[in-house]
Formats: sequence, C-alpha cells, structure tokens
Amino acid sequence: MKNSKNRKFTCKGINNALAILGSNRFKIIKIDILINGRADGHPRLKNLIDNSLVSQLRKDQFYKKHSGGRTQGIIVEFSGELIESRLPDFKNKSNVCLLALDQIEDPQNFGQIIRTAECAGINGILFPQHHSVSITQTVLQVSQGAFVNMPLYQLTNLSHGFEELKKNEFWIVGLENSIDAKPWYKVDYGGKTVIVVGSEGKGLRQKTMKKCDFKATIPMKGKINSLNVSAAVSAILFERQRQLNKD
Amino acid sequence: MKNSKNRKFTCKGINNALAILGSNRFKIIKIDILINGRADGHPRLKNLIDNSLVSQLRKDQFYKKHSGGRTQGIIVEFSGELIESRLPDFKNKSNVCLLALDQIEDPQNFGQIIRTAECAGINGILFPQHHSVSITQTVLQVSQGAFVNMPLYQLTNLSHGFEELKKNEFWIVGLENSIDAKPWYKVDYGGKTVIVVGSEGKGLRQKTMKKCDFKATIPMKGKINSLNVSAAVSAILFERQRQLNKD
Repeated sequence: MKNSKNRKFTCKGINNALAILGSNRFKIIKIDILINGRADGHPRLKNLIDNSLVSQLRKDQFYKKHSGGRTQGIIVEFSGELIESRLPDFKNKSNVCLLALDQIEDPQNFGQIIRTAECAGINGILFPQHHSVSITQTVLQVSQGAFVNMPLYQLTNLSHGFEELKKNEFWIVGLENSIDAKPWYKVDYGGKTVIVVGSEGKGLRQKTMKKCDFKATIPMKGKINSLNVSAAVSAILFERQRQLNKD
Repeated sequence: MKNSKNRKFTCKGINNALAILGSNRFKIIKIDILINGRADGHPRLKNLIDNSLVSQLRKDQFYKKHSGGRTQGIIVEFSGELIESRLPDFKNKSNVCLLALDQIEDPQNFGQIIRTAECAGINGILFPQHHSVSITQTVLQVSQGAFVNMPLYQLTNLSHGFEELKKNEFWIVGLENSIDAKPWYKVDYGGKTVIVVGSEGKGLRQKTMKKCDFKATIPMKGKINSLNVSAAVSAILFERQRQLNKD
C-alpha cells in the first residue's frame, strides 16, 4: 500500500477528534488544545484523551502552529498506517453494499463521499491505487471523522477486485449516463452490491463498464448537465436506503 | 438587495463561461483567455464571445493575474446586479418546487446546493438576507454555472416568504431530525412544495419549524451522525424526481 508506512496526519475539529480518539485504531502522536477553546474541557472528549499526549496552548501559540481552517481549538496528530484495509472475504455475509470510485481525482469529493457513505450505511469504499486521489489530509478532514468507521480498500486493480467480488455473489452496478442505463431508482440494490461511480467529467472507464452487471443513470433536469459526483453518490445511496426500509 | 449595485464577479473555467456568456442575463465586462489554453478556440465558446471584450494573454501574463484554482484558461468578469431575483407570483403555476435555505453559512455548501438543485429541476432557491452566506464569488464558482439558470430569491424574512407562498397553495416541508418527522421518502413532493433545509450543525430554527406543514428526516445509518447539508439536499431532491417520474 502506497506511502502507508510512517504516515502522519493531523485532523482538526471536534468531530474528527471524537472519531479518531474514540476508535482505538490509530496511534495518537500528539493533541494540541487551545486553552479555553471550544474543545477545552469538552465533556465527550475529556474521557477519550490521554493527558500525557496533550499540549495546552495559549491563543498566540495555538494559532501560530495551526493557522487556517476551522480547528474548534483541537488538533490531533496520529499515525495513518491503518487507514487502508485489505479487502476481506465477504463469502458468508449478506446485504453488503460497497462503493467503488473509478478515478476520483478531487480530494474534497473523496472526503465528502466517505462522509455520505458512512451516513448511508455503506460497508466499505474501493478505490484504485493509480489514477486516483489517495488518502490525504484533505480527504480525512473533509470526511469529518467518517473515515474512522469506513473501511477504505485501496486496490492495485479495480477490475480484478470486481472479479473477486463477483465470485462472492456481488452484483456490480455502474452509474453511467448511457442509453442502456436504467433510472437509478429502478435498479435493485438489495443483496450484495457494488455501486461504481466514475471520475468528475469523464465518467466510468470502458474496462470498468465492461464489468458492470447493471447500469444506472440519474437523468439531469436542468441545463448544465453536470451533477457533482458526491451529490450523485448521495442520491443513489439514499435510494438504496429507501429500498431497504420502505416496508 | 444587499450589495447588489456595482457588484463585479469573476468566474473561472469553461462550464462557468459557457453558462454566463450563453445567458444574456449579465453584462460581461472582460474575458481573459490563455493563448493556446483549453478555452482558446473552444468551439462552443467561440460563438458566444464578444471579441472586443477579450484579452488574449500569454502564460506568464495569465497566471500572474489569475493564480490558484482551475481556470481552464478562461476568466469571465461580469456585473452581478441581476443575480438575485424577486419572488414572483406562482398563483397560476403547478408542480413548482422551491428549495429554502435556513441560515446556510458555508459558501461551498451554498454553491454545491445551487448546482444540485439545477440538476434536479428545482424552480428556485430562497435564502434569507441575514444570518446566511450571501452570493459570493465562491458560491458562484462552486455552482459551476448553475446559478445562471437558477432563480435565487433573497428574502428579508424567510417566514414571511413562507406565509406568502402558503397563500398560493404551497406546502412547506422541513428537513429536520425530530420525533414527528417522517422518513424523507414518505413525504409527497408533488404539487407546489417548498423544501426547507437548515444550517450545518444547527438544523432549522424554531420559527422556521413552526411554518412547516410536514417534517421529513433522513435517518443516519452510521456512527458519525452528520450528513453534509448539500448531500442531504441531493438525497431529498432526487427522491422528489423519483416520485415525479416513477410511473
């Protein structure tokens, strides 16, 4: 896994801090807290913090180190070795839904998608090692702590990953604006499903399309004809939730 | 309308340029084009451009003026006097759906929401004059040209606006995580509807809630419990599209 050794990340804000400190998955390196800031003495944070790792900083000290962005008075530095996971064996599972990102390049979109996927009960996100944004500080920050609860599977080859998943009874649904695509709400997302979305502007690659068992499209109703990929993901993942819960 | 006189905006990129130049709504002040850049000689742009307003710039000149952000080699400067619209009389219209933003503060979210709303066939966006982000350069840029086709109604008082709309047979649906809220897909978005979403983190204000005829909620399926407001908007607006198109 690329760059997975000795990576350090810093995340800002209370949501991120609660998620990271509450998970036990990451080695916490350092916590900077602004004295009398919003996070200082925060009741839910207090129980999660190892005091030996905390630096309590005055305003001038804190903002000298951490300018820009909404910190809410807390910065957590942690080791990122365990952010990506290996694709497990889903053989004996049912009702698993994975999201696959085919060459998403914008870290803002990647982070938003992790956040939305977590809220929509997705079981993991697949993304390729090449031609894709990797896990960066921005991705984690934008996810607002959601990365902690969302398995992130970085694959050397997305198509091979699909082949493996198909052996374990997954259906692959590609979101693509093509003639043979059904409206997104006419596709059944029950059972074991992988939902694949493509890069901003370019859509799915041909070789990804070929692996898809179904194609879904979200028809555009305006003139600009370009829904942001994270908005498209939200529409499709909550349609899946509707289908699972409608009765 | 606040700051509406003599406002100038600059928007970057081909999508924005196509939308602004194609609309005839705005007075174009200046167009900077990077010589041999992606926009230079673009077939769809060529027919829209008034050459007397164009400065063709070499790489060094262009990037000295326009550093940062994806320009795709085109910057359009225009007068923003006509961005906001007055709320029209919807008396003789049917199947109108408006989106109302109750104190959205993040310009990225506002821009994304405009873009999503345009793609989902919404007829206009209401937002209050106070305690809300106003129309900024970032809002327009993030909307990727969608602001051109989306009426943006800035109201001095959102609640009064709802009262007026109710007189014209609108139903007000508030997205809010409360006990008496129905799952978002069990609310009927047909006819004349206003969908109201609240600020990031804080939700709808009490006085906004009181005006709502129905409450809808999107139950969270993860641990972080915080869907981004623009993702929530996408889920609800495309559920409306599903309802309108399902037969």
